[in-house]
This record gives sequence, structure tokens and C-alpha cells, in this order.
Amino acid sequence: MRYQPKDKRNLMKAALGQINSNTVITNVKVVNVITGEILKADVYIYDGFISHVEYNQPGKLSAVDEVIDGEGKYLIPGLIDAHMHIESSMMTPRNFAKAVIPHGTTTVIIDPHEIANVVGVEGVKYMHDAGEGLPMRQLVDIPSCVPAVPGLENAGADFFAKEIEELASLDRVIGLAEVMDFVGVINGEDRMMDIIKAAQDKGLYIQGHAPFVSGRNLSAYFIGGPTTCHETREGSEALDKLRCGMYVDARESSITKNIKEIVEYIKDRVSLYDHLCLCTDDVEADDILKHGQMNRVVNKAIECGLDPIIAIKSATYNTAKEVNIENIGAICPGYVADMLIVDDIKNINPSLVIYGGKQVAKDGKLIVEVEDKEYPLEKTNTVHVKELKAEDLTIKTELENGEVAINVMIYPDIKLSNTYVEKMTFKVENHQIILNDNDLKFVAVINRHGKKNTIGLGVVKGFGTNCGALASTVSHDSHNLTVVYDTVENALIACNELINCGGGMSAVKDEKVLYTLELPLGGLMSLKPAEELALENQKMKEADYALGLTDMENPLLRIVTLALPVIPEVKMSDLGLVDVNKKELIPLFAE
Amino acid sequence: MRYQPKDKRNLMKAALGQINSNTVITNVKVVNVITGEILKADVYIYDGFISHVEYNQPGKLSAVDEVIDGEGKYLIPGLIDAHMHIESSMMTPRNFAKAVIPHGTTTVIIDPHEIANVVGVEGVKYMHDAGEGLPMRQLVDIPSCVPAVPGLENAGADFFAKEIEELASLDRVIGLAEVMDFVGVINGEDRMMDIIKAAQDKGLYIQGHAPFVSGRNLSAYFIGGPTTCHETREGSEALDKLRCGMYVDARESSITKNIKEIVEYIKDRVSLYDHLCLCTDDVEADDILKHGQMNRVVNKAIECGLDPIIAIKSATYNTAKEVNIENIGAICPGYVADMLIVDDIKNINPSLVIYGGKQVAKDGKLIVEVEDKEYPLEKTNTVHVKELKAEDLTIKTELENGEVAINVMIYPDIKLSNTYVEKMTFKVENHQIILNDNDLKFVAVINRHGKKNTIGLGVVKGFGTNCGALASTVSHDSHNLTVVYDTVENALIACNELINCGGGMSAVKDEKVLYTLELPLGGLMSLKPAEELALENQKMKEADYALGLTDMENPLLRIVTLALPVIPEVKMSDLGLVDVNKKELIPLFAE
Repeated sequence: MRYQPKDKRNLMKAALGQINSNTVITNVKVVNVITGEILKADVYIYDGFISHVEYNQPGKLSAVDEVIDGEGKYLIPGLIDAHMHIESSMMTPRNFAKAVIPHGTTTVIIDPHEIANVVGVEGVKYMHDAGEGLPMRQLVDIPSCVPAVPGLENAGADFFAKEIEELASLDRVIGLAEVMDFVGVINGEDRMMDIIKAAQDKGLYIQGHAPFVSGRNLSAYFIGGPTTCHETREGSEALDKLRCGMYVDARESSITKNIKEIVEYIKDRVSLYDHLCLCTDDVEADDILKHGQMNRVVNKAIECGLDPIIAIKSATYNTAKEVNIENIGAICPGYVADMLIVDDIKNINPSLVIYGGKQVAKDGKLIVEVEDKEYPLEKTNTVHVKELKAEDLTIKTELENGEVAINVMIYPDIKLSNTYVEKMTFKVENHQIILNDNDLKFVAVINRHGKKNTIGLGVVKGFGTNCGALASTVSHDSHNLTVVYDTVENALIACNELINCGGGMSAVKDEKVLYTLELPLGGLMSLKPAEELALENQKMKEADYALGLTDMENPLLRIVTLALPVIPEVKMSDLGLVDVNKKELIPLFAE
Repeated sequence: MRYQPKDKRNLMKAALGQINSNTVITNVKVVNVITGEILKADVYIYDGFISHVEYNQPGKLSAVDEVIDGEGKYLIPGLIDAHMHIESSMMTPRNFAKAVIPHGTTTVIIDPHEIANVVGVEGVKYMHDAGEGLPMRQLVDIPSCVPAVPGLENAGADFFAKEIEELASLDRVIGLAEVMDFVGVINGEDRMMDIIKAAQDKGLYIQGHAPFVSGRNLSAYFIGGPTTCHETREGSEALDKLRCGMYVDARESSITKNIKEIVEYIKDRVSLYDHLCLCTDDVEADDILKHGQMNRVVNKAIECGLDPIIAIKSATYNTAKEVNIENIGAICPGYVADMLIVDDIKNINPSLVIYGGKQVAKDGKLIVEVEDKEYPLEKTNTVHVKELKAEDLTIKTELENGEVAINVMIYPDIKLSNTYVEKMTFKVENHQIILNDNDLKFVAVINRHGKKNTIGLGVVKGFGTNCGALASTVSHDSHNLTVVYDTVENALIACNELINCGGGMSAVKDEKVLYTLELPLGGLMSLKPAEELALENQKMKEADYALGLTDMENPLLRIVTLALPVIPEVKMSDLGLVDVNKKELIPLFAE
């Protein structure tokens, strides 16, 4: 795919100097990611595109209206994020844009997987439409696995080939998003094969997701269609994938940091870096405000020993190739004029951000208006739960008093989301299970998508809270209403908070609400800008600490993976306890 | 574009080892052009595609029918020629294939520009069809400039957007061939802009041709559409184009050798080589037999100091990217199984050539049958000239006796095809021009395409023959019948030889035919295989020597550019003398 100028002949005339270019950036050292050179040059811009790059006589300006003096600094292509979920920032696409543009991100490849699991096609369309007309490019990959694990959970939608075909016609759709059902692909299962075929037939690239997949499995997965992977944690894994011909989208999210492992491992083993790209996957508002977004990833790669030009290329040109766009990601004539002026190529921190030929941010501040628009989905409460009663959240036994064995989900480590299952014996008093240890909590996953009223109940150990109830509608990937609780009373208060406000997170202790973080957009996102949201997040974290989640870097993320049935060995869903590896449900009561 | 296996699920099963792969190549060092590594590995092949590359446990074979022992040698991807004209080999597509496959060329991007100028769409279709079902891949770019210079010559066809659209639907058409009317592009002229748009709308890549184009002109040309250039002669020119974002297809033809200049200039200036490709453009049968084809180009690049892995990458992976094919040019799962076993990566000379998973050549010999097929065009005489009379080839003056001034085309150097025009005075006797110097000859360009009976007459100096007549229907780019002669009698004999045999080259001295090289296919190509054709070429060369063309490396090439009105400053056409730079006709008689 190639972005076309409004009038190619005029752009050519501007190239020739027959008509004036709008702008020239002079007195800069251009980083040419195709040749690997850094050279003095003047870069002319006409109608959003680069019309000419003058290397031979830099400083000798002609046929141009406006001059930008680069003050001897570096000029690099605008940064491209190879894979990310805007929902993880908990911001709307427009507020996300406002937050990241000053850091030099001019293009993101988004996967609206979370909102798709809540409201399906409508959610993808919302993310697409709300990303329009911004001073950055938000390109959309269509979520491929909605729900992530069919049959073991109920999400708000089910995507098949038909949905992919429908969404492929949207303007800025370029790919099929992370094909996380890698087992389904490797086994050649119909759902994934049909979805991949539908996407390929529409000319979309296929984004992969293949953690720890290697050897023959990796070959089969790659042949199946996906050409990229951002789920690479170990250096040797990255090398395997590069050798295989896949693109490795090395990730540095707010929580999962893979750059060091990957860069340090491959940098002395590999001599060519065609298939290395960089991405953020998930970043929080607070993290963006403090540390930036894609620039942070590039800087980390450089800090870990990657040549700065290669690091910049991996966040620009390589990514453009990965997603089949011909003319973004380099400073060449005919390319879209997305560029950054930076003081130091080892520490990307743009003093000027140019998007589509326009100056959009300066010294860390946005300098253009982003028009506020309203969309129906932003006003829609997507938390559809029938009135909850105490009995809905109570594990019932026929036994009045005595003992019962239950399959408990156990977290061995507060810092990890891995779990296993263990049979434990509990006292029963008056038909009720008694939890005799502060580290044990009840857990409920309540379907909140209106079609089914399923509720999965269970017991969890090692979750981290030691009192109260913690509820969340951010609960990957089906985003049902998940609550971890000591008493049903606390749980009901927390759940009702979220049912009333349209979703978010709520912490309740001693039947008092400590804090509710309101995320009314799909139960996933706030309507507030980064600065306000970061403050609210902080308050929510403090409420989490008060429930005992003190040992986590980011306590907000503890509950959000409790119902994610792709992380071994067991997880909860609205259908009950799930054996992730066997892909089957485990009965609550043990034999 | 991505080549699809017949059954993707089966290929995946072969990857997994669930069904047997057909073949494994073991005991080899694989050159991985994506990571730049050389590693021991086993390469499994199933149904023409690579099913798996085993790096971790090389030698531990499983699930496979046939084993190829690579004897510890290197395994590299099959070579891809980024740009070439099969017509220049004077062989049919099938005979060309037989000649080049043993040298390791598994894919060529052909430009059937010559045959298109003779028989138009039918010619392109012939080249396409005749390249089908071969043990190599002949991909077709549609000739973009037929004729090369409209209005100054009459070719056998005229291509506009309509012809491009029609030909784009052929199976193996992937691009628009060298857009040599770079002035037309830079000036935004309708013919070229419409043709480029038609090609882009059909998803074709646009191959360029921009000798000595630089600076703002180069920017305009690149913006206009063409993304490649194989007409780069100087190192600095190559660097300009790489910086600009173009692919440079560094060329080593039988006659034009640009590799040394380009490689030696860029190798220490550039650190990344994404956009360097290699090509042959034009090679003769004899040259192929003696020195190979693409392997010769790769070896030359290495000899000039290019890292062998980069050189191989430039003749494989980079070229695949240049022409937008996803899965040829590397040794990775899901890629088409085109590979070579070579003893030495600094001197590519395949001991085994594997195409589409099959062994097709061994130790320099083809080991598969290439089915002989017949095509109507191969039986068609395309030399359509009405009966020639002496007066047709005689320059007439109204003056009976005296002197007349004529604009003469002058070659200053026997080794170059550049020319200039000079007014010279000639004696006239009985209405006839008297040439008073052996270095002066008459020249006629006779339209041979049947629709027009135009004949351009002139006088040439420094052509190189010192007696007799030399005629050719190979006469770029319109391939009219061109003859350089001392006497009309000799010229008529030479011309009639070619009219009768369907074209080729003929040398006549003292009214005796020295030799006629028959090229009955379009007047451009022989139906004979390389070995026989090389012998015939040798005889034709000897005849050329006998006419005085002794100082040329290849005398066959002297006449073929005499009517090529893109080489400055003047050339002949069937309309007369052409001022190449001014794009206008020059009168024969000077003022």
C-alpha cells in the first residue's frame, strides 16, 4: 500500500522547484534508514509529503515558502508502533493521541481486541472512527481471536471470517491482529484458518502472537499465515523467529519488558536486522506521561547496545515493511512527511514533531488542536448484568455442616500471573464455605454482556488481597465483571458500583467503597485525558494497596488477568474454573 | 504477492512432521539472508515449498522420504535477476531457461520490450506463455515505452494504458517494465502518467530507468512512480538513488558493466544495503555458456569487495522485496524451495540447483527435460517490407552534378554508441552522392512492421565498417530493418536475405553474402539452443570483422543501437535523422 498525494503532478513540480514547496527543514543531520548514513541535508515538504531531499547542496534553499531551522540537530522518521492496544492506556483514541504525539509517535498499529470482546464489530468501528482526523496515524488490525478461547468463556462477541471481511473494508484497516490462538493455527483448525484466509484474500497482513513457540511448531505457525510476533520473551526465541523469516516486534510495555533480553542476545549474533521491529503493546497513561511511548522503546534498545540507526530503523522503516506500507518510515521523496527533530539519536526526545508535513508538537507539548468529537459508544453503558443478589455470589453446598473439597486456583507468586490448581478441604457451616486463611478469597466472574447470565464461582489463593472486595470490568480478554472478595456483602457493593457507572475498577473494604475508577467507555476506558486519568489511577492503586496488594509494581494489573484463559495453568471464566492447557472446565468441587 | 502451496494444511503437517516431507537437504551450511548468519541446518521440502529449517539439531533427520547430502557445502537461495531482456540472448524463453538454470538462476524478471516493439501485445503474450511450465520462474514486467520515443520512429506497436491493463491480467505479470521515458515522467506527460497509473491500479510495481538522473529530477521521477533503476553507471549516482529510496539494480550485462563502479563506491559509504539488487539486463548466449549469468554478477560484486552474504542477499531477498514477492529469495519455512548448493560463497557455481523443490541441474548440467513446445509466433515472419528497389535506398538530389551539404551522423569512438551531427559537403555525380572516404557509409532504416513504408536515409561516419553492407532487424528499440552500406547493390542483397529468412543479421561484401545469422522469431531471436547459437554468432562476428568492425569487443552490437533514439546526440529512425535531446527530426540536407 502506498499513500497517494492529492495531486501527484504538483508534488513532482514541487520536487523540481517549479512550484514552491510549503516548508523546508534545513540545518539538520538526516538519518537515512535505507543507507544507514547520517548526512546534512535539506528536506522539502509539499502538501504533506516529502518533495525533495537535498544532500548535495545543503543550506542552499530554493522554491519554498516556510523555513524550519533544525539548529544542527538530527532529523529522523516519525516513530511507528508495530503493535499496541489503545484500550490498555484506558484512554480514548483521541486522548491517547494527545498523550503520545509529543513523544514522537506518528503512527500506531492498533489492535482493538479488548473493545471487540465487549461490543464486537461496533467496537472496532468505534476505535477506527475515533482515530480519524488526528495529528497522528492510527492504523487498525482486526482482532482475530474474539473470544480468545471459544467454548470456555462468553465474550460480548464472536468473530468469524464474515466479521473480518466486513471490517476489512474500513479505510485504515491494514491487517489481521495478533493471532493468539497459535494452537488453533498450528493444528489447522477451521476457525483460525478461515479467518486468516479471509484476511489474506482482502490483502491484509497477518500479525502473529506465538510465545515460546519454536522448532517445527514455529514453522507450521509461520506457514499458517502470521508473519510477526511480539510475544517473544527470550533472546534465543527472538533469534529462532528471525531465522524463520518472521518479524520480531520486540516489546517494551508498561509491564512486560523484552527489549533487554532480545537486543542483548541478538546484537552480536546477527549481522542483518531486516526483520526487527519495536512495539509497546500495552502502556499506561502515567507511564506515557513520565517516560514517553515508542521513544522509550527505541532508547531502551540503544541502551542495550543496538546501533542507534538500527534502533530507529526498527521503529520506522522495518515496521512499515512489516505492515506493507511503501512510503512511511523513511526520509525520502514521495514519503509521507512524518519526521522528528531530536537533539540526540541515542536518546530520542523530539524537540519538534512533524506529522503529514505539519508541526504538531514542540518541546514535549502538543501545538495543534485535537477537535473533541463525541461518539454514541462513549455514552453507552456496556455493563449488562441483571440485578445481583447475595446468592448469586455464594458457593452453595448441599451439605449443611462438615467439610468439602474444592479445586482452588493458586498463585504461587504475587508478581506472576501463572497459576495452578490444588484440591483443598474447607469447613462448611450452614451450607456455606468457610475460608480459614486470609490468603484465600472467593472469586466470581460475572458475564456482563447481556446475552447470558452466566457466573463462574471459585476460590483463589495467593491473589494478594487480604481483605475486602476488588472488582473490575477490565478483565482480559472477555472483560466480564470479575470480583475477588472476602464477603458477599463487600462483593455486591463493588459490583454495583461498576454496574452503575458503566464499568471500571472498584475497591471495597468493610462495606465501604475505598475508590472506584470509572471507565465508562466499554468498561475499559475513561473519557478523561492522560493527566487526569493518571491521578485517578493513582487513587485506585492506593485503594488496591489498602486491600493488601502492596507487593506489585502496578496493582491495577493483578485482577485483569485472573480471567485470561490463555495463561497457564488455570484461570477463571464466567463458566467456572478453566484448565488452560487441556482447554476444558474443571469442576468446582473436587472428587 | 505470496505464492500459495497447493494445500497449506498439508505443508503445515509436513512442517510438524505429522506427514513426511518429500526431501531434506542435510549436511549443509545455510546462508540466512535475513539474519546474515551462516549455520548448519537441515532444510525440509514438501510439495515445492520449504516445510521446515532445523537449526537446533542438524543431522537428526525425521519424517522425510528423500535425503540430499550437501557434503558440507553451502546452501543459498536461488538467484533472482532483477531486470533482463530474454530477447538479448537471441534465444527463446525455453532455450534461455536451459542455458541459465545450470548457473543457478531460478527467477528472472523479464522485460519483453523488444518483441513488444515488433508485434505488440501478441509479443508480450508469447514471451509470457513460452515461459510457462519451465524449471525456472520467468516473471514478466509489461513494456512501458512502446515505442521508446513516439513521433520520432514507427515501431510495430503503440502501448497506452489500455494495453497495460490488458496485459496486467496475465498470470506471471508482476510489474511495469523500465520506464525509460524518464523525461516524460519528470515532465508529468500524459502518456507515461496514464501508463504508470494503470499499472499501479493493477497492483504492479514500477520498474525505472533513469541514467544520470539526479537531484530534483530524481526526486520527481521517483515520486512519479518508478521505484528501481538499473541504468546506474557511476558510484555516486548509485548512492544518490539509494539515498532517495530507490532500489538500485546494479548491472553487469555482456556489454555494460556497472558492478565495479557501484560496489567499490558504495561499499565503504553505506552501512545498510536494503535497496541494492543485481541484474544482467542483456546477456549473450556465448557469455552465458562461458561465464554464467546471475552467478557471474554476484561473483563480480564479491570480487569488488561486497560482503558475500550481502551480495547473495542482493541477488535474492532484496530483489524479491523490490518486486513485492513475499516468499521467494530466502531459506525459510513457507518460502518456495528454490536453492543452490555451492562449494564457495565467494564464487557461486552451483553443484546442485533446486527449483520448486526439485533437482533441476547438477554440476553445470540440466538434469530435467524441458518439453519442447511450439508457438505460432515462432513460425511467423515478422519482416514486413514491400519489395525494395535500388531507388528506395538511394539518396536523391535534384542537382545533377556539383556539391551538396548533408547532416552526417558521426561516431567519435568505435567503442561508444554516442554520436553527434556535423554538416559535411559531398560531391554529386549524376544525381548521386559520392562518398569520398572509406569511413563514410550510407545508412537506411526501413520500417518493417507492415503498416507504414517509411524509410529513413542518411550518411554515417565512424560506424566502423570499411566496405560492404551490414543489415539487421535487431535494431533497438523499434527493430526496423537497419542497413549500413557502401553500395545500394550490397544493401539490397543484405536486406533481402533478412526479408526472406524472417530477420536477423546479414553481412554482404562485393555482392556476396558473407554470413546471415537467422533470427526468425520476431527478427530478434533464434530457435536454436545456446550451444548452436553461440557458434552462429561467432560466424556472424567473423563476417562483421571482414567488413572492418575489428576494434569492437562484440561487433554484433554495433548496428543494433544505430537507430536507438534515446542515446545522444543523434540517431537514425525510419523517419530520418533524429536529434535525441531536442526530440525532433533533422533534415538530411543541411542549409
